Amino acid sequence: MKLGIAYYPEHEQPDQWDIDYSKLAAAGIGSVRIAEFAWAVLEPRDGQFEWGWLDAAIERAAAHGINVVLCTPTACPPIWLVEKHPDVLPVNKQGRVIGFGARQHRSYSSDHYVLHALRIVNRMAERYGDHPNVVAWQLDNEFGGETKYDFSDGARHAFHEWLGKRYGTVEALNERWGTTFWSQRYERFDQIPLPAPIGADVNMWQHPSLELDFARFSSDSMARFAGLQAAALRPYVGDRPITTNAFMFCWGDNLNWPDLFADLDVVGMDIYSNKPHEIAFYADACRGVLGKPFWMMEYGTGTTELERDMQLVRDRGCSRFYLFKMKPFPWGQEQGGGQPELVTLTGEPSRNYGVVQSYTAKYGHVAELMETKRAGVGLYYHFDSSWSYQLSVADRIAYPDYLVHNIYRHLYEAGIQTEVVYTAQQLDGLKTLIVPLHQIYDAALEERLIAFVQEGGRLIITSDLFRKNEDNVYLRSVPRLFAELLDWQENNFAGGVLAEGTVMIRRPKSSKGETWLVHRSSTAEQWKDILAGIIE
Amino acid sequence: MKLGIAYYPEHEQPDQWDIDYSKLAAAGIGSVRIAEFAWAVLEPRDGQFEWGWLDAAIERAAAHGINVVLCTPTACPPIWLVEKHPDVLPVNKQGRVIGFGARQHRSYSSDHYVLHALRIVNRMAERYGDHPNVVAWQLDNEFGGETKYDFSDGARHAFHEWLGKRYGTVEALNERWGTTFWSQRYERFDQIPLPAPIGADVNMWQHPSLELDFARFSSDSMARFAGLQAAALRPYVGDRPITTNAFMFCWGDNLNWPDLFADLDVVGMDIYSNKPHEIAFYADACRGVLGKPFWMMEYGTGTTELERDMQLVRDRGCSRFYLFKMKPFPWGQEQGGGQPELVTLTGEPSRNYGVVQSYTAKYGHVAELMETKRAGVGLYYHFDSSWSYQLSVADRIAYPDYLVHNIYRHLYEAGIQTEVVYTAQQLDGLKTLIVPLHQIYDAALEERLIAFVQEGGRLIITSDLFRKNEDNVYLRSVPRLFAELLDWQENNFAGGVLAEGTVMIRRPKSSKGETWLVHRSSTAEQWKDILAGIIE
Amino acid sequence: MKLGIAYYPEHEQPDQWDIDYSKLAAAGIGSVRIAEFAWAVLEPRDGQFEWGWLDAAIERAAAHGINVVLCTPTACPPIWLVEKHPDVLPVNKQGRVIGFGARQHRSYSSDHYVLHALRIVNRMAERYGDHPNVVAWQLDNEFGGETKYDFSDGARHAFHEWLGKRYGTVEALNERWGTTFWSQRYERFDQIPLPAPIGADVNMWQHPSLELDFARFSSDSMARFAGLQAAALRPYVGDRPITTNAFMFCWGDNLNWPDLFADLDVVGMDIYSNKPHEIAFYADACRGVLGKPFWMMEYGTGTTELERDMQLVRDRGCSRFYLFKMKPFPWGQEQGGGQPELVTLTGEPSRNYGVVQSYTAKYGHVAELMETKRAGVGLYYHFDSSWSYQLSVADRIAYPDYLVHNIYRHLYEAGIQTEVVYTAQQLDGLKTLIVPLHQIYDAALEERLIAFVQEGGRLIITSDLFRKNEDNVYLRSVPRLFAELLDWQENNFAGGVLAEGTVMIRRPKSSKGETWLVHRSSTAEQWKDILAGIIE
Repeated sequence: MKLGIAYYPEHEQPDQWDIDYSKLAAAGIGSVRIAEFAWAVLEPRDGQFEWGWLDAAIERAAAHGINVVLCTPTACPPIWLVEKHPDVLPVNKQGRVIGFGARQHRSYSSDHYVLHALRIVNRMAERYGDHPNVVAWQLDNEFGGETKYDFSDGARHAFHEWLGKRYGTVEALNERWGTTFWSQRYERFDQIPLPAPIGADVNMWQHPSLELDFARFSSDSMARFAGLQAAALRPYVGDRPITTNAFMFCWGDNLNWPDLFADLDVVGMDIYSNKPHEIAFYADACRGVLGKPFWMMEYGTGTTELERDMQLVRDRGCSRFYLFKMKPFPWGQEQGGGQPELVTLTGEPSRNYGVVQSYTAKYGHVAELMETKRAGVGLYYHFDSSWSYQLSVADRIAYPDYLVHNIYRHLYEAGIQTEVVYTAQQLDGLKTLIVPLHQIYDAALEERLIAFVQEGGRLIITSDLFRKNEDNVYLRSVPRLFAELLDWQENNFAGGVLAEGTVMIRRPKSSKGETWLVHRSSTAEQWKDILAGIIE
Repeated sequence: MKLGIAYYPEHEQPDQWDIDYSKLAAAGIGSVRIAEFAWAVLEPRDGQFEWGWLDAAIERAAAHGINVVLCTPTACPPIWLVEKHPDVLPVNKQGRVIGFGARQHRSYSSDHYVLHALRIVNRMAERYGDHPNVVAWQLDNEFGGETKYDFSDGARHAFHEWLGKRYGTVEALNERWGTTFWSQRYERFDQIPLPAPIGADVNMWQHPSLELDFARFSSDSMARFAGLQAAALRPYVGDRPITTNAFMFCWGDNLNWPDLFADLDVVGMDIYSNKPHEIAFYADACRGVLGKPFWMMEYGTGTTELERDMQLVRDRGCSRFYLFKMKPFPWGQEQGGGQPELVTLTGEPSRNYGVVQSYTAKYGHVAELMETKRAGVGLYYHFDSSWSYQLSVADRIAYPDYLVHNIYRHLYEAGIQTEVVYTAQQLDGLKTLIVPLHQIYDAALEERLIAFVQEGGRLIITSDLFRKNEDNVYLRSVPRLFAELLDWQENNFAGGVLAEGTVMIRRPKSSKGETWLVHRSSTAEQWKDILAGIIE
Repeated sequence: MKLGIAYYPEHEQPDQWDIDYSKLAAAGIGSVRIAEFAWAVLEPRDGQFEWGWLDAAIERAAAHGINVVLCTPTACPPIWLVEKHPDVLPVNKQGRVIGFGARQHRSYSSDHYVLHALRIVNRMAERYGDHPNVVAWQLDNEFGGETKYDFSDGARHAFHEWLGKRYGTVEALNERWGTTFWSQRYERFDQIPLPAPIGADVNMWQHPSLELDFARFSSDSMARFAGLQAAALRPYVGDRPITTNAFMFCWGDNLNWPDLFADLDVVGMDIYSNKPHEIAFYADACRGVLGKPFWMMEYGTGTTELERDMQLVRDRGCSRFYLFKMKPFPWGQEQGGGQPELVTLTGEPSRNYGVVQSYTAKYGHVAELMETKRAGVGLYYHFDSSWSYQLSVADRIAYPDYLVHNIYRHLYEAGIQTEVVYTAQQLDGLKTLIVPLHQIYDAALEERLIAFVQEGGRLIITSDLFRKNEDNVYLRSVPRLFAELLDWQENNFAGGVLAEGTVMIRRPKSSKGETWLVHRSSTAEQWKDILAGIIE
């Protein structure tokens, strides 16, 4: 695992660069991640680009033997763009414009934003695409980290188009959403509101089908924008990998990772956690998307457990590990309490400077990991189901927490290597598969699960499996998986029949494998016992 | 007590109706409550009505021996009406329009709304008023359940008119509200703001007289709209009773029940509670308004205590009992967790299907209750006082909870039959009367209470009785009731003199009866002891 | 200490005045504070003044031997002014106009407001400036008590001007604020937003330099307005003192007291607390501003500890003590629960009427206190640091609570007389000085502290002393005070090196005095021990 770090040359006077690069080189750090928020200094006025400082900062890094991951600076549109085209700004669910002054103040549905963002990406690609010291690219920063949902007019129009493509006719939408309920029938797509809070005096929420589709649309909008950036880079960057830094599901779960990384070369993520099982989970979650080594793009330099955590993600397939960040920010929103990073405010080495130095002394010569091997136990993560639970008022479940803390934690603590899988296509080679809280029905997955067990697989599901269709509407007949795998004779759903806290275990004659049906209300303690009985 | 249930023929394909009605008939259910949210399917475009499906649904019900309570669908204006006349939508106290996409998105002060609502009520009355299988009418659904207070321009204008009628001149309003305080004097009624939150950085609230009047106006607006609907139905429905489904005071307390039911024929309500004493209280509260049997319009089919609760309300004068609802809603805001209703999502009978079947087998032949007998103990419920406490910042009391849980509960648990009374005219026949938290002075009630005790009644009041006048302003002299009934010689109010936790008991020479003055801060436990000492 | 009380002649019929003044005179109260919210009755229409009632109310007071502190009524602009000039109203941070209907609905940045306010102040000054019975003036009421921060367009423009004066060029601002971070660079001052909440979905806050400057601007705006009022009064009032009633720091801390009172004659404040050490702190805080006796402008008449608290503030230099208020307000936002004040709602004397009577009988003849003596222990209160902590998201500390409850309380309970000091100029005569949480660097203070210790002073500082510069940006080198007073050899800040819960004590050879460096995370209990070891 190679170490890198976030560095901000634009925050310094040029004569500071050599001082800083020397300190990094002395710690054995061979890569910096730069320019992620530098739009305003790269394009200080509309169409006027200033590359000189970045040219020099990259050259000086090279002079110290430090290569560069170059970031597109699109998460922070400059004031001139916002002023000229106010539709660049997104709108929050209370209807207020999200103003200039922080970051991610951009609407993915604004043509002005997208065009200006792609222009600067294009210019950076032209200039640095084949630069020998620029070894990889990061798109933007933490898509969906701050502004997940955009309620602007632009987003509304884009959502109407998206709905039009999904449903074909508004009659079909009415039928599938059940809009006869409460006289909500629409005559045209453009009448459909965004799911802002209703704002009644008491006790009123939004239509669950509308909410789930808006979560999908929002994810699609971000993934589409990432794809446009990647497409703008491709012609210039050769085989240099393109990634982005995705975020923890408990913060950024509205973004479907398989979609986001579909056109990228390597999975990158940022993690801020002090729980070993959570860090391990996200390492597995990263590796699972593309089934190969991944990069940690941000890991907090202030941690007290850096050695442990580097080991932890390295063991799970991390091939590059970028610390965040070399120095404390003295100003701005992230000034925090002025705590030390790799160095302190006064430039002195912190405790972790020594940790890094030891690590690079020991492992600096090891070649970068190129492939990973696959574990036999799988945990299925489903974004649509996740959104469905998290948007629900009457039936809300913190889906990511449930998977990470109620289930994965026990696998981790029992020392069981785990694959996180996202699609029915990723089940090959697994012997045991846990599919918790997969509320949304998926016919292809149903087929695959039946085959999985018939061929000898061990399948663990929860009592709410496949309760709803893809429109977030409850099914009115029990899917055939229950009969096939559990000899289910009831004309009722498992969730309404299975007692809380119990597990039903079945091995029908037609199956070589076995199925465990676990009540979804099981606590972390109950899951611990259940898993201990299944996975040795 | 006859059983009925909410059914939504518009949610089904017509060939499903016979299947569903058969299941209902097999359970002994003889009545369905339909069409309450069906505006969009009855009038899919402005002025174009489609009665065919409703005609057929009513006919098929008749074919199964099931009669119909027809609801006016006015709680859910369709998208075409909202789009054509945006003033149909109310505005919440933050100044945001309450959008289309849920229910009760209608301003009672919008002429466009009221006219279109009355038009469809009129058309339904014409078509179904004398239908032999339509046996009663329900107006709208849970007035004030979601949107109690409307801060739209329309509401503001209507409130100014209302104030004009109440006060005559703005000088009178200034005088009565004490607007010299903080230089709040108004020159014209149209300068008076609605009591939206002031929105200062800290610690600032609204004028208490303005707030109480706005609560009264909001109640009046809803009662007036109900009256208009009733008037529209009357010429067509003969002697078929008209009701509506009012809601629990803790949710819908801004609506004065005696006003709401003044022009209706029977009291109807919806209750969602699992506390027996609360259910009993609302049964007594229903019976008390018109002094005769009432109807339960919604009772949750999912309860585990259906037998107990049916018995409980039946014993207190409920003559019709409508379950909510036959089936789970698979889609829409009320999809919940897909829990079973009378049947499950897959159409199988739930446990309560059996409970219903047993009940109807046992009591199906019993004739409907036509009158009720009166208890000797009364509990006085005063809407104006309730609002006054609940709107106060410095002196807030959860009035409905206090009456239900601090007082009524002990009567219930001691097995004491109770009348809930709302007006000075309803005291006849009572031997004991509890008047808790009646903060707002009422001269007629004062007269009546004095007479009640002088004639031998036992009266229980709290220390804040009659502290404020009808403008929500503190009185500056002690009402004569205190001298008459309590030999009160102080020139101060009881609340400032009586010690907390104490009770003063007096029987002046002029009275045959007796008065207990209870400190209003008494807890539920203290009330239990106090009541045990008075009511045997 | 002389006693006075708030009285509202405009709330009464004129024939009530003599009754009320007689009761006050009988209690020995010799002064009333009047007219503070009376704008609408003094100027009921634009430019039409009605002085008759106020003339008479002042005359009748004189007839009873009661003198008058006259208040400018500017905290409550009348409806006609708001209606004619809507820009009078401020806007809150959610972007909503703060409406008419309460108080302090005025933007200090509105020319219309300021002009009309100064006009009525000028007219009052002309009429009553040399009135023999008007002995002092109070400006407005509790500046910043409700509306501290104004997000109106007017405030935005004024803030841009303020920034222009502070920074000269926008380039300087960019440099000092570090706006290269997140591409926040501005091209013109007028692009800078007010620090309203960003409104992103998660986890996003405002720029700390912007926030601190907006706190300063808001304080300056209020102090400037107070200064304008004082200047309007001066030519007419002779040597009659001008004050205002400032508020507790935990509520009104956005207003810098030394700035506010710079042009006034005596410090006045309102206190509402039942904690003796808090009351004592504010007495010391009042005395400290100008180093002389102060006035308590409001003290709640409803307290149960009036004797104790009068003694407490009298001992600390209070020369006039105004109770709030003679009577309960029956109407309006402050009607509360109708609790008694000096008299009850019915006009009867309350318990505290007797307390007042005893006090005035005992002390009525004592001459007014003219100067105070100085204590040897000082506690430094720094408004800029206070704002810096309270605005921070990542490093928030309730600064006023920390000083009052973690530190001052122990001094009070140990019987140690304390000076509250605000500027480097106020250190003369102190032997011991506590400077807690003084985060913002101040070169003049640094000089003074070094000299203070070198000359023999005992200095107690916390580990975050001088961590940030005046732009709320962390310093990147350690101020020399640490080397001078603590022999600090580290090239790191104390806060990152000193262990939590520890104290470093140093007396370098160059100093006669001694310095204690206390970790800023010390709890109240730890502070108690620390202080007990230092101050005997």
